[in-house]
Amino acid sequence: MFKATTVIVQTSMDAMKTGWFSEINDFWPGVSLSLELENTLHREKSQYQDVLVVQTKTYGKALILDGIIQCTEKDEFAYQEMIAFLPLCSHPNPKNVLIVGGGDGGVAREVAKHPNVERIVQVEIDSTVLEVSKKYLPFMGVGLNNPKVTLNVGDGFEFMKQHTKEFDVIITDSSDPIGPAECLFQESYFSLMKTALKPGGIVCSQAGTAWMNLDHVVKTFQHCKSSFAIVDYGITSVPSYPTGQIGFVLGGLSTETNFKVPKRIFTEEELDEMNLRYYSSEVHKAAFVLPRFVEKALKSYRTT
Amino acid sequence: MFKATTVIVQTSMDAMKTGWFSEINDFWPGVSLSLELENTLHREKSQYQDVLVVQTKTYGKALILDGIIQCTEKDEFAYQEMIAFLPLCSHPNPKNVLIVGGGDGGVAREVAKHPNVERIVQVEIDSTVLEVSKKYLPFMGVGLNNPKVTLNVGDGFEFMKQHTKEFDVIITDSSDPIGPAECLFQESYFSLMKTALKPGGIVCSQAGTAWMNLDHVVKTFQHCKSSFAIVDYGITSVPSYPTGQIGFVLGGLSTETNFKVPKRIFTEEELDEMNLRYYSSEVHKAAFVLPRFVEKALKSYRTT
Repeated sequence: MFKATTVIVQTSMDAMKTGWFSEINDFWPGVSLSLELENTLHREKSQYQDVLVVQTKTYGKALILDGIIQCTEKDEFAYQEMIAFLPLCSHPNPKNVLIVGGGDGGVAREVAKHPNVERIVQVEIDSTVLEVSKKYLPFMGVGLNNPKVTLNVGDGFEFMKQHTKEFDVIITDSSDPIGPAECLFQESYFSLMKTALKPGGIVCSQAGTAWMNLDHVVKTFQHCKSSFAIVDYGITSVPSYPTGQIGFVLGGLSTETNFKVPKRIFTEEELDEMNLRYYSSEVHKAAFVLPRFVEKALKSYRTT
Repeated sequence: MFKATTVIVQTSMDAMKTGWFSEINDFWPGVSLSLELENTLHREKSQYQDVLVVQTKTYGKALILDGIIQCTEKDEFAYQEMIAFLPLCSHPNPKNVLIVGGGDGGVAREVAKHPNVERIVQVEIDSTVLEVSKKYLPFMGVGLNNPKVTLNVGDGFEFMKQHTKEFDVIITDSSDPIGPAECLFQESYFSLMKTALKPGGIVCSQAGTAWMNLDHVVKTFQHCKSSFAIVDYGITSVPSYPTGQIGFVLGGLSTETNFKVPKRIFTEEELDEMNLRYYSSEVHKAAFVLPRFVEKALKSYRTT
């Protein structure tokens, strides 16, 4: 039924067809994901990074920052739904939410769906990403125009210094710790988020893949634990990310927080109304069940 | 800390360094995983397929058949442990096990660990894979030498016609449905497995990734359901497979089978003794919790 290609072995990438984008980075050495392109929709060097939007053959539109795939139309929902609903559904009443980063708008789109959320403040450092997403990636950019959202262009670090005890949930949707986002994985960042939270507050940060960067996952986990009573690591499947999996470090101020058991359970009808394609309460619980090698690496640091 | 590469955008794969293996196949169009190579350890055209063993830079040794990555040293345990222990731990007493395919030996290695398993019969069509694995991939090939294992070189289809009501569990560890393994995904194959099983028997077959081949997953699921009372689909994370995820279709003859709840629960000490790095009872249960878009696609066919 399926014709195996005749090009079965490449001893060099030179042998491949032209017209592919390849992600190559020292953070995941020796492995590279490539997407076949239809065309480039936009490319611009912003104040902070190289911003590229492409139309791929089978993954839809894709946003690429400094050569790293941030999201593709095919699978971005798995990431956005999980980074939003894991913390939101772990909080008894998430009214005020801060999003740091997330310039494409996908996280804001998901956070705004939660019925308890009244106000979303978003701080994105790179205005070019906001503009590009609104123009070329409307399926995510739409989130930025939600009436619940107040957009700030600036440094999340500086913003939080001016806002104490203001938020129920802080979501950090950053790029990887190899460019402008490096500071968002440090201990000082987690301790600053703590001051910006209301009592019982929760944080959720993109924290990389255990398959490739286990040391980095453990380190981010430790940093979170130094400021939060309850810490956990949840995972989701995202094919266009390195190793096809990404994880989130979550921290809770209250010892009553238990990320493994969602406080808010949505019915199938509610999930349908919110157009959730990945997240459910069962998926929430399963996200914190980790492969043994990951469980072991985090064991001495895990709080539950 | 991490230096972003200066090669940030490839409009063509020609721009990449030489010395990479790239997986390109019509079964997952528009996307390609590449592994950087140290050297080629062996290459041979067998009676059935192109057999290639390479030493990669960061994924260890890898077996590649007809240009498709079958397993890498870095992550093969996630696949082998799950395809073996999901069915074995769903059966009350899995004494006799048939493995169809699995020529690298990884599945036999895992099946032999289960304390109830007394006898493993393996039928692999390509003797070259067996020889190559024993010689170049001893971390998997060792499974073929286990005293519980009886090896047969031949066609699993033909073998089963001669063996009725003989096995408690049948595991089909095949390559993808685009070459010699195509027949192992058909309805007739599931109905033949049924005849080779003892009462209460269970089957588990590699069934591809829902992210890329949802139609194929649904079709394999339907074929299984036409012969088995209880059917389910479980998933695991394997970075070197397309989309970083692969699933298994499981079928049970008895209505008392419930794949979601393992019958055999191993202690942490037992899991350590068996050197299980991925599988645990909690991972077992979580494997059957599916993203909503997969759950919906299978909903009308699922039995539990």
